[in-house]
Amino acid sequence: MKEPASIAIDAMGGDNAPGEIVKGAIDALKGNDIKILLAGKEHAIREELEKYSYDAGRVAIIDASEVITNDEAPATAIRQKKNSSVALGLLAVKEGRASSFVSAGPTGAILTGATVIIGRIKGIERPALGALLPNAKGFSFLIDSGANVDSKPSYLLQFAKMGSIYMENVVGIQNPRVGLLNIGAEKEKGNALVKEAYELIERSGVNFIGNIEARDVPMGGADVVVADGFAGNVVLKHTEGLAKALMMMIKKELMSSFASKIGAALASGAFKNLRKSFDYTEIGGAPFLGLKGLVVKAHGESNARAIEMAVRSCISFSEKELARRIEESLSIEAPPK
Amino acid sequence: MKEPASIAIDAMGGDNAPGEIVKGAIDALKGNDIKILLAGKEHAIREELEKYSYDAGRVAIIDASEVITNDEAPATAIRQKKNSSVALGLLAVKEGRASSFVSAGPTGAILTGATVIIGRIKGIERPALGALLPNAKGFSFLIDSGANVDSKPSYLLQFAKMGSIYMENVVGIQNPRVGLLNIGAEKEKGNALVKEAYELIERSGVNFIGNIEARDVPMGGADVVVADGFAGNVVLKHTEGLAKALMMMIKKELMSSFASKIGAALASGAFKNLRKSFDYTEIGGAPFLGLKGLVVKAHGESNARAIEMAVRSCISFSEKELARRIEESLSIEAPPK
Repeated sequence: MKEPASIAIDAMGGDNAPGEIVKGAIDALKGNDIKILLAGKEHAIREELEKYSYDAGRVAIIDASEVITNDEAPATAIRQKKNSSVALGLLAVKEGRASSFVSAGPTGAILTGATVIIGRIKGIERPALGALLPNAKGFSFLIDSGANVDSKPSYLLQFAKMGSIYMENVVGIQNPRVGLLNIGAEKEKGNALVKEAYELIERSGVNFIGNIEARDVPMGGADVVVADGFAGNVVLKHTEGLAKALMMMIKKELMSSFASKIGAALASGAFKNLRKSFDYTEIGGAPFLGLKGLVVKAHGESNARAIEMAVRSCISFSEKELARRIEESLSIEAPPK
Repeated sequence: MKEPASIAIDAMGGDNAPGEIVKGAIDALKGNDIKILLAGKEHAIREELEKYSYDAGRVAIIDASEVITNDEAPATAIRQKKNSSVALGLLAVKEGRASSFVSAGPTGAILTGATVIIGRIKGIERPALGALLPNAKGFSFLIDSGANVDSKPSYLLQFAKMGSIYMENVVGIQNPRVGLLNIGAEKEKGNALVKEAYELIERSGVNFIGNIEARDVPMGGADVVVADGFAGNVVLKHTEGLAKALMMMIKKELMSSFASKIGAALASGAFKNLRKSFDYTEIGGAPFLGLKGLVVKAHGESNARAIEMAVRSCISFSEKELARRIEESLSIEAPPK
């Protein structure tokens, strides 16, 4: 019989820790053959656990006396707080006690910690943060969405490969279309970085469809959108902000006349569905790819539902042995310069 | 008595030339004390002009036998087609016969032509393309929205100054808040370019509010958003694409139930108003700033209304002597390295 996957969860990370985190973890047990390891202050976690009934054999605590906060410098925090929930959760992955780690804590500390403690896959120069972006047809996977700025062309090549493997194996899109975020569709467009990356990705074996302009991203023009972390983060945050602004503008317009107020009431179910598409709680966190294990960054404002979805997204990752697949895909050809 | 401003218009540029361009130019005469100079093939322009009644003393033709198309290399096209509508329209500005030039033709050719024929303002290293972006509170001015990639920090400083002057004098926002597009709010965030640009803009005398994240741009977090042309173009095109995708998604949701179909019908006026906010025809084209004269790029798909709005946006520019103001603002301090 196959051993169920163990997923380590940072019980102290994010604005709603530990209450919502523990609740989300317990909710994720339902219907999934997994174990959870809650990293954080034991008494605080026990206090939350007492509120629920669950199979005690599937829940363990990693007692962590320290917490890393948003205002700490990542490298210093990771070096000094060896007993933090982030460090001990990552260590569980490193030592094979957990297949993956979910945290709503500070992005920088998680990334630095993951690189130092778990380590990079051979051939990956920089782990990248992926994000599932809602679009008119479903989702596209944006990589890098903010971990690396001033990228080299070889990083973008690696992002293309990792994104392609993630989308195929975790999200289940066959032969995903990989597009390079650029300011024009033609090959010769863009800055020095993307021009060189284009050449590399073209020869990489992924299903490369060439450049994709930002206007085609929300229309579902590519399944994987490859970008430097600066441009990628701009797209990620702009999606969040513009969707919010548009909803506000629609609401304001609808409240401007009696007929449209009635209309808004009748259409409220439709708006609710749409808001759900853009709701981070449904999306399941952003995976860091390129590490010898999966680390998922959940939104800092994560509630129980968001944590539950993030935990669920970890399950296929370990089942599909993604880290091994990424390593294999890199070893097929000459290492990037 | 003050001489009315003369505005040169590329009658041959864009998908709907010359019909819609000529119509938009004639429409712009109404209510504005201006003259228009239509650059293009004389017989084609005359054929269109015959459809309207207008004051012939306020309309002149610059006969241009050549047209620059989208698939030509900009530098070659400008060098070889001395009699193109773009080249002759720009020449009218250079020689003082026109205060400004509006074209829906190819962006690259207009920018190259403007730099070669009209020339840069002293102290401006690169002219930039500005764009008025709709947001939840009104508009913000995005500069550079796509003319320059691989910018230097000093370019971004110049964009900040030009954007601030444009927003104050053309759009009428007192002491506009200038934000630097970045992936975090803190000063130390971002790539090498924006970190250095931050230092320069901070000391520049504009009303600098620091970094602005892409999520705050649609919420109206800054009046002027300063960016390298790569990131700026990503924001510009992403706005267009995401607004379109969201409208599609809303429509699809609304059609999914009987109640929401009725709701949609009642709320249709509100949706129409919102679409209008995101409609480029209302925005009036994107100005190239940093030239010794105003050049406005209209959308390639411009209809008569879009051209009319672009012409209107030229009027305040010349009235307020923007080129002179930009030059003055640069001479106040030590030139950028």
